[in-house]
Amino acid sequence: MTTTRTVVRGGLVITAADEMHADVLIEGGRIAALAAHDSDAAAGWSADTVIDATNKYVIPGGVDGHTHMEMPFGGTTASDTFETGTRAAAWGGTTTIVDFAIQSVGGSLRSGLDTWHAKADAQCAIDYGFHMIVSDVTDNTLKEMDVLVEEGVTSFKMFMAYPGVFYSDDGKILRAMQRAAANGGLTMMHAENGIAIDVLVQQALAAGRTDPRYHGEVRHALLEAEATHRAIQLARVAGAPLYIVHVSAQQAVAELTAARDLGLNVFGETCPQYLFLSTDNLAEPGFEGAKYVCSTPLRPREHQAALWQGLRTNDLQVVSTDHCPFCFAGQKDMGVGDFSKIPNGMPGVENRMDLLHQGVVDGQISRRRWIEIACATPARMFGLYPRKGTIAPGADADVVIYDPHAEQVMSAETHHMNVDYSAYEGRRTTGRVETVLSRGVPVIDNRTYVGRAGHGQYTPRGICQYLI
Amino acid sequence: MTTTRTVVRGGLVITAADEMHADVLIEGGRIAALAAHDSDAAAGWSADTVIDATNKYVIPGGVDGHTHMEMPFGGTTASDTFETGTRAAAWGGTTTIVDFAIQSVGGSLRSGLDTWHAKADAQCAIDYGFHMIVSDVTDNTLKEMDVLVEEGVTSFKMFMAYPGVFYSDDGKILRAMQRAAANGGLTMMHAENGIAIDVLVQQALAAGRTDPRYHGEVRHALLEAEATHRAIQLARVAGAPLYIVHVSAQQAVAELTAARDLGLNVFGETCPQYLFLSTDNLAEPGFEGAKYVCSTPLRPREHQAALWQGLRTNDLQVVSTDHCPFCFAGQKDMGVGDFSKIPNGMPGVENRMDLLHQGVVDGQISRRRWIEIACATPARMFGLYPRKGTIAPGADADVVIYDPHAEQVMSAETHHMNVDYSAYEGRRTTGRVETVLSRGVPVIDNRTYVGRAGHGQYTPRGICQYLI
Amino acid sequence: MTTTRTVVRGGLVITAADEMHADVLIEGGRIAALAAHDSDAAAGWSADTVIDATNKYVIPGGVDGHTHMEMPFGGTTASDTFETGTRAAAWGGTTTIVDFAIQSVGGSLRSGLDTWHAKADAQCAIDYGFHMIVSDVTDNTLKEMDVLVEEGVTSFKMFMAYPGVFYSDDGKILRAMQRAAANGGLTMMHAENGIAIDVLVQQALAAGRTDPRYHGEVRHALLEAEATHRAIQLARVAGAPLYIVHVSAQQAVAELTAARDLGLNVFGETCPQYLFLSTDNLAEPGFEGAKYVCSTPLRPREHQAALWQGLRTNDLQVVSTDHCPFCFAGQKDMGVGDFSKIPNGMPGVENRMDLLHQGVVDGQISRRRWIEIACATPARMFGLYPRKGTIAPGADADVVIYDPHAEQVMSAETHHMNVDYSAYEGRRTTGRVETVLSRGVPVIDNRTYVGRAGHGQYTPRGICQYLI
Amino acid sequence: MTTTRTVVRGGLVITAADEMHADVLIEGGRIAALAAHDSDAAAGWSADTVIDATNKYVIPGGVDGHTHMEMPFGGTTASDTFETGTRAAAWGGTTTIVDFAIQSVGGSLRSGLDTWHAKADAQCAIDYGFHMIVSDVTDNTLKEMDVLVEEGVTSFKMFMAYPGVFYSDDGKILRAMQRAAANGGLTMMHAENGIAIDVLVQQALAAGRTDPRYHGEVRHALLEAEATHRAIQLARVAGAPLYIVHVSAQQAVAELTAARDLGLNVFGETCPQYLFLSTDNLAEPGFEGAKYVCSTPLRPREHQAALWQGLRTNDLQVVSTDHCPFCFAGQKDMGVGDFSKIPNGMPGVENRMDLLHQGVVDGQISRRRWIEIACATPARMFGLYPRKGTIAPGADADVVIYDPHAEQVMSAETHHMNVDYSAYEGRRTTGRVETVLSRGVPVIDNRTYVGRAGHGQYTPRGICQYLI
Repeated sequence: MTTTRTVVRGGLVITAADEMHADVLIEGGRIAALAAHDSDAAAGWSADTVIDATNKYVIPGGVDGHTHMEMPFGGTTASDTFETGTRAAAWGGTTTIVDFAIQSVGGSLRSGLDTWHAKADAQCAIDYGFHMIVSDVTDNTLKEMDVLVEEGVTSFKMFMAYPGVFYSDDGKILRAMQRAAANGGLTMMHAENGIAIDVLVQQALAAGRTDPRYHGEVRHALLEAEATHRAIQLARVAGAPLYIVHVSAQQAVAELTAARDLGLNVFGETCPQYLFLSTDNLAEPGFEGAKYVCSTPLRPREHQAALWQGLRTNDLQVVSTDHCPFCFAGQKDMGVGDFSKIPNGMPGVENRMDLLHQGVVDGQISRRRWIEIACATPARMFGLYPRKGTIAPGADADVVIYDPHAEQVMSAETHHMNVDYSAYEGRRTTGRVETVLSRGVPVIDNRTYVGRAGHGQYTPRGICQYLI
Repeated sequence: MTTTRTVVRGGLVITAADEMHADVLIEGGRIAALAAHDSDAAAGWSADTVIDATNKYVIPGGVDGHTHMEMPFGGTTASDTFETGTRAAAWGGTTTIVDFAIQSVGGSLRSGLDTWHAKADAQCAIDYGFHMIVSDVTDNTLKEMDVLVEEGVTSFKMFMAYPGVFYSDDGKILRAMQRAAANGGLTMMHAENGIAIDVLVQQALAAGRTDPRYHGEVRHALLEAEATHRAIQLARVAGAPLYIVHVSAQQAVAELTAARDLGLNVFGETCPQYLFLSTDNLAEPGFEGAKYVCSTPLRPREHQAALWQGLRTNDLQVVSTDHCPFCFAGQKDMGVGDFSKIPNGMPGVENRMDLLHQGVVDGQISRRRWIEIACATPARMFGLYPRKGTIAPGADADVVIYDPHAEQVMSAETHHMNVDYSAYEGRRTTGRVETVLSRGVPVIDNRTYVGRAGHGQYTPRGICQYLI
Repeated sequence: MTTTRTVVRGGLVITAADEMHADVLIEGGRIAALAAHDSDAAAGWSADTVIDATNKYVIPGGVDGHTHMEMPFGGTTASDTFETGTRAAAWGGTTTIVDFAIQSVGGSLRSGLDTWHAKADAQCAIDYGFHMIVSDVTDNTLKEMDVLVEEGVTSFKMFMAYPGVFYSDDGKILRAMQRAAANGGLTMMHAENGIAIDVLVQQALAAGRTDPRYHGEVRHALLEAEATHRAIQLARVAGAPLYIVHVSAQQAVAELTAARDLGLNVFGETCPQYLFLSTDNLAEPGFEGAKYVCSTPLRPREHQAALWQGLRTNDLQVVSTDHCPFCFAGQKDMGVGDFSKIPNGMPGVENRMDLLHQGVVDGQISRRRWIEIACATPARMFGLYPRKGTIAPGADADVVIYDPHAEQVMSAETHHMNVDYSAYEGRRTTGRVETVLSRGVPVIDNRTYVGRAGHGQYTPRGICQYLI
Repeated sequence: MTTTRTVVRGGLVITAADEMHADVLIEGGRIAALAAHDSDAAAGWSADTVIDATNKYVIPGGVDGHTHMEMPFGGTTASDTFETGTRAAAWGGTTTIVDFAIQSVGGSLRSGLDTWHAKADAQCAIDYGFHMIVSDVTDNTLKEMDVLVEEGVTSFKMFMAYPGVFYSDDGKILRAMQRAAANGGLTMMHAENGIAIDVLVQQALAAGRTDPRYHGEVRHALLEAEATHRAIQLARVAGAPLYIVHVSAQQAVAELTAARDLGLNVFGETCPQYLFLSTDNLAEPGFEGAKYVCSTPLRPREHQAALWQGLRTNDLQVVSTDHCPFCFAGQKDMGVGDFSKIPNGMPGVENRMDLLHQGVVDGQISRRRWIEIACATPARMFGLYPRKGTIAPGADADVVIYDPHAEQVMSAETHHMNVDYSAYEGRRTTGRVETVLSRGVPVIDNRTYVGRAGHGQYTPRGICQYLI
């Protein structure tokens, strides 16, 4: 890294806590300084590159804590590679992803992690880290968890759903949580009662209810809430912190609220699809609903308000994407006639920052809260702070110049994700990414992609910074 | 203000959101820039004054949103003048207070405000603003509220306690809340059912229970919780935000938690005395308990954990002091033989930042949360942000150099408040204010007072920044 | 009372706990025995009178714990006298009422009670007792409460509404509750924040919102819930039991639920109008809505489900009528152009048993629960058990032969209350009173009135039997 | 059954709803009539047998809805046979038990039921019915459930604990619940998260924590509450009623409270051991604690208050015994050195009515509530009402003459259960069974056993009578 100097002039710098009319000086890939626009200090800066951010926001690059690039699932593979997916992320103003390496049943964590390193290595346009999906809790797995935490893989995802695939029973979950309580790891939980859901799936199919919309019906909101409650109680028994991924049901939010009212180290993530889409989409005519099949499923429209409220009250702390795209043609259509064969997942890594900004425009959240849930909190939650998630002296110069007034229309025609549809096709939003720097290096320059595969570095992570 | 330049070198800058190893440049009374210690930008700064903050914290000056300097109460007057009180505040690392102007029954808001301006004018060592105590809701009072909000007095305190003095009935409260809902004002509430409490007071006195500890018993925790609940419901009917002052009972915290779970604009403040003292103090032998007589009263020790938890879960957002000192000799002793005649109030404006830092040392809260509850949130709550409450380009250079390792013993011997006792006499704490700047001007310089009465400016305030 | 013998043959006897195919033997005004239809014991009974109850229910006479016969209110007087009102009650299957004697402000309880005794004496067709409305809590009033409890007036109603009329402030309420805690009395509470409501009333009228439907809007559900919560907390401070009258808002039910979950001696009553009518009625065209003006007011339709549920979960224990009729012509019309001048109250003493039986038919409650909420629990709650409220050896022979299959249409044309309209005009219900015995003496005989004014006796009451 | 006539004279008859000073006439094994003591009707009765109940209570025989006579468990068999166990039950004032037939894994319900019929046939001193333990949910099992409901086995117990023995996973539970929702059956649940508990068991043993008290520690209260919550949610998804057996943790009571506040058909049972014993007993010196090993386990003493409160608030509806005795010598001692090998279960069928009467004496519950939770509600819950659980014309003449003033000391020396210890050894209680009739036939006559094996009849049951 040469010590090139870049100055971002004239913008409104927004962090989780502050809004500053300040110029930003970047030296050697890091934020060197902020200075008030009209200060002598700012006036005195020289730079190799000057970016004009007048009338723009200057925000930290987004941190997407939940992506699945090229993940094998249900006999196919998520359609974005680390190359295409991280490029699309950058287009959307995200400069760090934390993806999920997967332990196979019978395999080691190490082997799974190596596999994912191989997929990502030299491919990424932006920085990345890994969580570890634990599919097989054994004595050896538990020992490996300690090592991984030391190495910077500090979070472990487990599944209460998907029996026979990723599913862990409550005993295995408890053992892994106990270990995490000891080694500082954070347990991430897919909280759905998959054992019960599979009964409902089989009953639905047997009754000829095979359309995509039944995917939403069989994955009952109460069964998300139940699993959320159960995971919380197991975490209490283990004395461990807990992070619930992709919360979609208002009843699950209520479980989080109750836990947090008790002062527990329990956290919750939701995703843009749950904030903006609903079972109405799953019920679109023909097989269109398959585009919206993901788990936890989309919920009836009235759940959206509970999720937004949870984001305001901090009962939900993070918005990630759970980006896991499958093409409509050739992938989603594996489930024609049997919704249970539709690959679970939706594209979104490119849309998150914009959709949440739309939440600002709509009055759902404040500008600072936008940055908090999309940048600062995921960075702290996953041990990337203060390098990521903020604009402050010493932080990585992951900086987005955001035009809050530009309008755009989301579309598969124009998006950069490697998937043949957009979940938000035709949706008009206000606000658009103009320029993106990753450690000071332009990736998007005034809406031109100037990045390269391999610029993005693997980023080991510290432990969750929210625990008391 | 001349454009003197000051640089604070080598410290750890802490804001509500960020911890930065950064130098701070001050120009003309405002924060001009922050730069990483080792950056070329920082190296290039010249300054009239250089403050060495190596191994120290560099934090925003504290904002104490609840003080009562020279307030008349119960036939006497709080013993700190604006001069002595703001000097003591500075010694304690607080650089802004918001004090309470009082409307007399039958008088106008304007007249009350004028009186308080006269008291404070040219007396203060640090900046100050005013809330308005509304004692007499009339058509005219409501009109005046609109004017005051425009002028920068944007919060109105009402009392559900003290019948015959400050008390407003629920109809008056509702009317004032409705007006605040329209004009952007924030209603602050002393939430105790004073009508019921006065019955218990009279019964206690009639039964010969006259010692200070009965002050705590008659002001029943359920009657604080009741009033808190009632105020919240009235605010819901009015569609207005609400801020509950000096929450001390865990049952009252529970009411706030329930309200916030509903997403309501309801906020809560507690004070150091409730976090560190208890009914054990009220029951100290002889008349010693009188030192701890304030309302809401100190509670049994087990309430402290609920208050700390509330601060962690953000069900309580602000820690103010309710600083209202009365000397033990000559003031508190007015209540010998009748606890109801003890002037209500305690000193504390000098102790707040240190006691809360002790909370950090004890593991109750994080460093960032310390700054949030003591500086940033009160500034935002009362419309002083971003001038006050943070260290960011453009903010007022209200800066404290804080030594986190120094030890001190609190004592009336050494404190600077104009009161003959300390509520924390003999308490050993870790952490101490070294140097305090107010708008860039030294007030405390390496533990020497170098300020002056009249430096502090009246600061009009905007409206509460937490409302959605 | 001569020892005439009556046998009721062939019916299904229903009590709060049992359903028995049994004949009932009445001797000297009391239930002497029950025997299985086909038993030798039953076969052996001779009787002066045999009532055939084949295919009928044999149920305890209803106990209506909340009536206001000939009550002065708002410049007029409730249109049913004790004579007309108790006759109508009997027609509706009710054999005991507990009416409210009223203390005037400045007057004594004794004087109020004497006044009501004079109104009722020798007028009633069925037995009656009195609650006491306490309007003026003084030292003397508190002493009188003790005496009244001894005499059999064991419950005291207070008002948080109607400032200037019946209203007591929280201090007076607390004092009366403390006294009741000591003397065994039960505090009954009209729980609405009348101080706040009166502000909303004045604002509505000032804004020209004068129609009856505004009566419902200004008496905000949250202000019922608030007062309910407050009354509960005051009762906790006093250590006293509490009975909330005429609960209509689901938020108030929630307060009762929360209190009962804590195991408190807190009870709740609702009325048929809240179960069957709604704000839709208040909004009927023209001035028709005035027919439905009562306080607490009718609520939007969705509150009905919460009330029924509360009756099932025992969070509500009693259904009374709050019978307080005012004629549409000449009384209700006092409020044309100003809803606040409409006399508050509705007729219903004749309709309660039938409407609740309709709840049985509709599947809302079981038959036994019908008897429990309408007969057994009010009898126990108000110290009339086991004389009233059940069919058991030793109990007063207050017996109703009820035809569960007969249909009727409610109408002012056919009802017996002295009021010119029915709140349920045209409503078709299933089930009808056939015959009513009061202490063994026929009052209604096969749908002919055979009773007489003066048969009904004043019935002193013991204390509430639900307290633990 | 000859039509012998018995009269019980002079007692206080207590049912769930009524207390009556009445004589009771029994004809042909059923209650023929009740008549007031001083009535001509009573005076006229002649009888073959007259029982003098002066100064005694006359109560319905107890219904113990949860016993395990001669149940195989953990390599041994519960020490009471149907003969010894029902005789002991009668001594304790219980006249009906509902025992549990067990389906083996791989076996049919029918086969299990036949086995239990063979055990009980011609052995019992009192009447009995069966619940069915479902260990193996298959398509065939589900079909058999329908048949059993028709036959009078209307309740199905499932286990969330005991993996590898009785455990059913959530999918199997859901399927069985769905079936019960359709056929009217009641699902009874052993609610403990056995999968998680088994992890804690293995960890405790591996760490050398092998004493009986660790049985209580590993079966964490939160894991009972968790399973309770989960069972409730599964029941909601299935639309089925639910009955939680042997609730011992206050956190589990809270889950029931929450469910019942929602109006759900969710019921809870506790047992005398949870009301009177605690982890103090499990921690008795040496191996004594093994006497108190049962599952759910005894809890710390403070849980007792929550259980009593639950009984008062009707969040718990039934007290059964879970009678499952194992001798200390030769059975309990299988677990020396390994608490997990201690057979789970305690004796108690003889003590239930007396211990609950002690609750009356102690002021925990009323007399009527005693009868309700011990007789009437279990009879209604399990479809035995009105034959069992009350004293009313037409009911079976299962009648207990109970001396409320007699004192006794519980002891293995004097009890009649076939087990070598008493869990209440040396406990002094007030109240004692004097005489017991089963369908009019004396079983205990003035504290002499006069019954016989084979008098007790198998009693088919209807469906739960509490559902709305």
